[in-house]
Amino acid sequence: MKKERISNNVIRRLPMYLRKLDDLIYHGIDRISSGELGKQMGLTPSQIRQDFSYFGEFGQQGYGYRVAELREQMARILGMNKGYTVAIVGVGNLGHALMQNFGFEEQGFRLVAAFDQSSEIIGKVISGVPVYDSDELVDWLKQHPTDIVVLTVPRSIAKSMAETIANCGVRGIWNFTNTELGLDKSDVRVENIHFSDSLLTLGYFLAEQDNSETDKK
Amino acid sequence: MKKERISNNVIRRLPMYLRKLDDLIYHGIDRISSGELGKQMGLTPSQIRQDFSYFGEFGQQGYGYRVAELREQMARILGMNKGYTVAIVGVGNLGHALMQNFGFEEQGFRLVAAFDQSSEIIGKVISGVPVYDSDELVDWLKQHPTDIVVLTVPRSIAKSMAETIANCGVRGIWNFTNTELGLDKSDVRVENIHFSDSLLTLGYFLAEQDNSETDKK
Repeated sequence: MKKERISNNVIRRLPMYLRKLDDLIYHGIDRISSGELGKQMGLTPSQIRQDFSYFGEFGQQGYGYRVAELREQMARILGMNKGYTVAIVGVGNLGHALMQNFGFEEQGFRLVAAFDQSSEIIGKVISGVPVYDSDELVDWLKQHPTDIVVLTVPRSIAKSMAETIANCGVRGIWNFTNTELGLDKSDVRVENIHFSDSLLTLGYFLAEQDNSETDKK
Repeated sequence: MKKERISNNVIRRLPMYLRKLDDLIYHGIDRISSGELGKQMGLTPSQIRQDFSYFGEFGQQGYGYRVAELREQMARILGMNKGYTVAIVGVGNLGHALMQNFGFEEQGFRLVAAFDQSSEIIGKVISGVPVYDSDELVDWLKQHPTDIVVLTVPRSIAKSMAETIANCGVRGIWNFTNTELGLDKSDVRVENIHFSDSLLTLGYFLAEQDNSETDKK
């Protein structure tokens, strides 16, 4: 694998390539050119070739990409073959929904434990995963080195919980709390889910439509 | 407002600008140059000036941008001043979480109704919003023209529900079902939430770390 510094924009496109490749496989397409792939994804062929070039030689001049092979490479690049372990902290509605419906296994991750402070849910097993008492979190993480924590606690305790978790050797936090966790100086990687981005994108398109209709009048 | 065709990449950056501007306001910063804004967002100054140029003249040569003013413009571009109406279809764990925690009002949207088929939840009021029977959805939408539907139903009924909704004059669907809704030929705009994208980005960084440590050995 080449060792160039890869930009964030390229990295953020990788999961989109994966989704597109899954979609192509689903539709029985086993070969695609960078031109056609670009067309379907709103990218230029040269951008696609450039993106892939960071990771090796995937396509073949005049032949294009073998979809299944490229999908496998992409999954490998995204760590899906590593079986990274995941714990969920906060089993409210959102944590619950992720445990029941997200499908960590399909993405190559292993959800191994959940934590909450509510006695109503501690001790339950959701989708095969036990819910433990949050008070046991620190001890548990020390005994069970865990790659990723999904943070779905209330916003008010998000920062303090993130700091606690970061001190227990967790490598990544998937942050659903809609709060900046302020772990900038830590070597824990944080990925934030910003629900509002896509709602506001809808807002943009609706407003654009409304404005152009007003202009026509 | 200029009428050039604006690329999807630009549109997807708009909510990020909004978040950054909110963050600057929170930190008491009232003026910023395109250079500094670019640095903080991982964009070039010329990219930022180019992005904004589609919507008008915001900055001032040698002075930069007035943060509060730019934030207001950005909110307007994203339709946050329009009071678009929203209904949630599917009040399972995820729908419930959005009703309780998302804060539609803060984003300028009005959540007016929710629908579910479970008798356990029909008739309840969550965060001030009534939950109606899904069987009443079509009639209700016809009587209450609604801009956006949040789709949080189980995957198995996502497509049929989306088609029903699209036929009731809804303008946008915010799709949490992790399924392509296949409304391509409809004039309903769909925005998909892809949770997995950011988890896989975490996977990428962890795998990169692991691979470079292996290389060192």
